[in-house]
Amino acid sequence: MSTYHKYAPLDIKHGKVNMAHGSGGRISAQLIEHLFKKHLGNELLNQNNDQALFAVEGARMVMTTDSYVISPLFFPGGNIGSLAVHGTVNDLVMSGAKPLYLSAGFILEEGFPLQELEKIVISMAQAAEAACVKIVTGDTKVVERGKGDGVYINTSGVGIVPDELNLSGELAQLGDVIILSGCIGDHGIAVLSHRENLEFETAITSDSASLEGLVKLMVEKAPSIRCMRDPTRGGLACALNELAQQSGVGMSLQEKSIPIKAQVAAACELLGLDPLYIANEGKLVCICPAQNAEELVKAMRLHPLGAESQVIGSVIEDKRCFVQMETTLGGTRMVDWLAAEQLPRIC
Amino acid sequence: MSTYHKYAPLDIKHGKVNMAHGSGGRISAQLIEHLFKKHLGNELLNQNNDQALFAVEGARMVMTTDSYVISPLFFPGGNIGSLAVHGTVNDLVMSGAKPLYLSAGFILEEGFPLQELEKIVISMAQAAEAACVKIVTGDTKVVERGKGDGVYINTSGVGIVPDELNLSGELAQLGDVIILSGCIGDHGIAVLSHRENLEFETAITSDSASLEGLVKLMVEKAPSIRCMRDPTRGGLACALNELAQQSGVGMSLQEKSIPIKAQVAAACELLGLDPLYIANEGKLVCICPAQNAEELVKAMRLHPLGAESQVIGSVIEDKRCFVQMETTLGGTRMVDWLAAEQLPRIC
Repeated sequence: MSTYHKYAPLDIKHGKVNMAHGSGGRISAQLIEHLFKKHLGNELLNQNNDQALFAVEGARMVMTTDSYVISPLFFPGGNIGSLAVHGTVNDLVMSGAKPLYLSAGFILEEGFPLQELEKIVISMAQAAEAACVKIVTGDTKVVERGKGDGVYINTSGVGIVPDELNLSGELAQLGDVIILSGCIGDHGIAVLSHRENLEFETAITSDSASLEGLVKLMVEKAPSIRCMRDPTRGGLACALNELAQQSGVGMSLQEKSIPIKAQVAAACELLGLDPLYIANEGKLVCICPAQNAEELVKAMRLHPLGAESQVIGSVIEDKRCFVQMETTLGGTRMVDWLAAEQLPRIC
Repeated sequence: MSTYHKYAPLDIKHGKVNMAHGSGGRISAQLIEHLFKKHLGNELLNQNNDQALFAVEGARMVMTTDSYVISPLFFPGGNIGSLAVHGTVNDLVMSGAKPLYLSAGFILEEGFPLQELEKIVISMAQAAEAACVKIVTGDTKVVERGKGDGVYINTSGVGIVPDELNLSGELAQLGDVIILSGCIGDHGIAVLSHRENLEFETAITSDSASLEGLVKLMVEKAPSIRCMRDPTRGGLACALNELAQQSGVGMSLQEKSIPIKAQVAAACELLGLDPLYIANEGKLVCICPAQNAEELVKAMRLHPLGAESQVIGSVIEDKRCFVQMETTLGGTRMVDWLAAEQLPRIC
């Protein structure tokens, strides 16, 4: 069952691409389902995880791809280069994989300063080294002024999944526990503030980071983990809706357990944004059997990127696959898919 | 030794990206060497082939990436979708690999008609099926109107190299023979004619095609092949200069042996273009020991994509790594790297 079927079908004949098709929300999902998967679908693409898992001569490999079109290119806490490495490494490791190799494809706009390009490439090199991956193949294209926006980067990656692990979005079970690795909304609010020249009392910095080390520790401690996902575009809300749908379950969250920095909460309040839908680039959400949760959270907190890990809810029975949340005010609200575009070009 | 060192070094401090940085010629090579490889270089990236070869649990795998920014998106003989599959499959198979899996990353411009996008995706599906590869993971980003040009596609791919094969650009040896699989210049001239609304008596069609079948037949017949390359951006001239440089050898070509369609030759003449520098998307150049050449050409000619295969020259001693050509007029000319941009956005 797929909740976005309730909405108007994609009008391929008359429709045009709009910003919401890139949001990571319901409209993105519709485009993927009714156009891309309709024609390209196969048993590997249809796994519906952020990476495809396949066997090559006995080795269990994963492959993933992401194009980065973030604006501005440089933001507090990183730039498009470090982000392009972190994002793709994170999509690999969400399967429990050890990330191995990345490719890098650049689309450069005529007139872009080489000095800025070099800064971006240096950040990629540093991020790759920190995540223990190598960039092994690349490509450079140039488009005329006004046909790009400085630099777009595609990074694709491959990794290898240890034999004993089996993580996938459809494996969540009733009674499982949902764990979040830290506070939400930092990346999206940092980029937005910088883009719109908003000033807050305390500077907000992107959480952009490779989760390779944290995941390694997690799967060693709890190989029983059902699935992990990094809540990027579309935020925590969309990541959890995806998992709920894949597993055919509901979820119940506790708002008070979801960590958020005071200045991020304040910025969201001011801008009328819901932090549940804001992109993160160094966080993960994980679903595991209840009996492993306490020990897993304890282990995660020992890692710098998991220091604020929290149990934020549990998997419940719900044929409609709804994600609901007990609010701090005592009520219950639905946490639906993102319906339109909240923040364009955030990654 | 690298001939482009003779030219002014890349001025990172004051320089800007220009169209020639995407040409596949000398200026592209300079950007790759002095900016990308300077910071990202490692033993795999430095293999300098169109794909990286690495071992994963005993399997010999290759990985490659290419972004496609061709303009116009639809051209005689294909569109950006089929091209994105053919191009990346071809980069994989130039190592002798069996291509396995591709990723597809789309950068869509706001306002692009979904109907055209669907046509492109259908072409990708057909091209993938024909090449026996699966598209297993994808990504979609949307940029605002005026920040893209309809659709850009990145395809990355992985493949597996049979144990007995060892093809690489640095393996050409003195006395080896250079074989070309068919006539040159079709793709570039087809796209240019369509873009500029040039009409010729006979329509010129792109040669865009997957070389997977031809390569399979070639490596079965002659596993001793030293190297293969598909002469895309920068054309046959740049592909051969790259191989000459990698192997530290010279090359001697015979112009009369290089097949070219009469209408392509006429179009080049009219437009002042040298067909040696025009992109091909369904041709390969191969270097093999002299004793295998005759049988290999015979075998290649049995395949539809190799029907016009020809020996076009041989590998000679030359410390300067020059590629020279005996012209049909009886003289000898240098076939240098492409120095600037000849045809922008041809792939």
